[in-house]
Amino acid sequence: MTALHTSRVAALFPPGRLTLREVGLRDGLQLVRRFPDTDAKRQWLMHEHAAGVRVFEIGSFLPARGFPQFADVGDMVAAVKALPGARAAALTLNERGAEDALRTGVDEMIFVLSATEGHSQANTRRSRGEALALLARIAAMRDAAGPDAPVLTAGIAMAFGCSIEGEVDAGEVLRLAEACARAGADVIALADTVGYAGPREVAALASALPRSVGDIPLAMHFHDTRGLAIANAAAALNEGVRILDGSLGGLGGCPFAPGATGNVVFEDLVFLCETMGFDTGINIEALADARRIVARAMPDETLYGALARSGLPKTAAWRVSRVPA
Amino acid sequence: MTALHTSRVAALFPPGRLTLREVGLRDGLQLVRRFPDTDAKRQWLMHEHAAGVRVFEIGSFLPARGFPQFADVGDMVAAVKALPGARAAALTLNERGAEDALRTGVDEMIFVLSATEGHSQANTRRSRGEALALLARIAAMRDAAGPDAPVLTAGIAMAFGCSIEGEVDAGEVLRLAEACARAGADVIALADTVGYAGPREVAALASALPRSVGDIPLAMHFHDTRGLAIANAAAALNEGVRILDGSLGGLGGCPFAPGATGNVVFEDLVFLCETMGFDTGINIEALADARRIVARAMPDETLYGALARSGLPKTAAWRVSRVPA
Repeated sequence: MTALHTSRVAALFPPGRLTLREVGLRDGLQLVRRFPDTDAKRQWLMHEHAAGVRVFEIGSFLPARGFPQFADVGDMVAAVKALPGARAAALTLNERGAEDALRTGVDEMIFVLSATEGHSQANTRRSRGEALALLARIAAMRDAAGPDAPVLTAGIAMAFGCSIEGEVDAGEVLRLAEACARAGADVIALADTVGYAGPREVAALASALPRSVGDIPLAMHFHDTRGLAIANAAAALNEGVRILDGSLGGLGGCPFAPGATGNVVFEDLVFLCETMGFDTGINIEALADARRIVARAMPDETLYGALARSGLPKTAAWRVSRVPA
Repeated sequence: MTALHTSRVAALFPPGRLTLREVGLRDGLQLVRRFPDTDAKRQWLMHEHAAGVRVFEIGSFLPARGFPQFADVGDMVAAVKALPGARAAALTLNERGAEDALRTGVDEMIFVLSATEGHSQANTRRSRGEALALLARIAAMRDAAGPDAPVLTAGIAMAFGCSIEGEVDAGEVLRLAEACARAGADVIALADTVGYAGPREVAALASALPRSVGDIPLAMHFHDTRGLAIANAAAALNEGVRILDGSLGGLGGCPFAPGATGNVVFEDLVFLCETMGFDTGINIEALADARRIVARAMPDETLYGALARSGLPKTAAWRVSRVPA
């Protein structure tokens, strides 16, 4: 990884600055029975952009026959890049995907590996060691593409507990994160794929990670399976994590967590961040327009979220946290 | 307040020990169109007790014609007292209610006053000053009843923001809490009546309160109106608050927060506490039995909750928070 590329990473994820990544167009569509066509996706994207959202995970560089919902990933990257200040991220799970990613000019390639051997094999028929070697090869492709190559994020699935193996040792997650950084990842993301995390584990891992991986930007990805996603996000923010994922209406789920609700609800996550004193630049009320588009495009999906039900508080006080006298 | 009574307070709320108060049988029934009869309430109570719940808010000492759902408050106190280790709390909003409370032998009288003048007048046609004077008179009745008199809790509604007045100054809440303690309250409870709080304000008030009121037990009562209740509970626990309210399925709401969901979901609150290393003594899966009873008794009510939908994690790891190496 070159110094120029390092400065590109810092430009996309400036230390201390909050990034909220809207993953509905990827993680939210991973399992749906019906998915929006490219035009509806563009509408969804444009309405969220109009509300102030800037970072979008919009698909996956995978064979279109297995994942028809992501067949338009190239068009979606182009759609994001046409919007001022917007950035596109996409899953990039193998070398062929990385070739496509580099060709489209996506801003962030997200590679996923598993915290546990059991999930790694079940999900990808690959060991964690093989996944790390693949990550290193994708990192080499990124380096060969020059300083403007996409940022490469290593996402560690099941980082807080695994529905196949059960408990996940935090020390092992830290070692895996370190190995990802050595393999060339620019960003480390921990995912609570099946909603096993509580705020105490989140705080513990978030505070321990910098000792393992240095000042690499850290992301966290929470699912609200057991209702703790917002509390986990608050714990992550308290410990300095500044990249968080969410999806509009909490769309999305996981094949390994049957019956589970999806990602942390993006609208509620924005509200949390604002109450905690972060200026997200996102107009929560304007997100309702995007929500209506999604509801129309995917009538079978349940959209979650407290803000959408109750609206913002009457007062602007929630925007700036108050410190008692 | 006598030294003997002080030791009674400490016996009910030992410093550092977590108390989860199930308020569904009171706050959960405050606004419902149909409410369970006394037998169904007893079933609800007994099933929650069997799951390990020990502290129940079961009604309000108010005229039965205005609040028919609480006409059986005396029977409900008796029902709680018949269960081993169980304790009953009930709203006690005036002197006549306090007479009834003292006669029934309820364990905790909860008096409520408002953080803002506007809500105080709208809710009770009484100023905050008048409410404090009334609290002092109820405290005098408690003292006259001897050392075994109920614990008197002062609950401050709208403590984190008011749907009538908007922003609530945290310094004013602290002064009001101090005035409640001076008036004789044994426990101070802050309520986010309309769901305006975020975890940062909760942490700030929770850490500032002991400087205002000394080592009086502190309770917090969160509504999940905007999805932050569990995050707020986590923030309160992190700052040493050890008494938290919740209601089964999130039952309850507030006439000043139309369309709002109710209290923090009790099942999810228990799960949060367990992941944070507290031994609640409550079997979350057994709470599903109580939930079925409530669903049958109140078919018009929406029951919320993530745990009820997704079940517990497969692993027992969530019971004990792990600290990374």
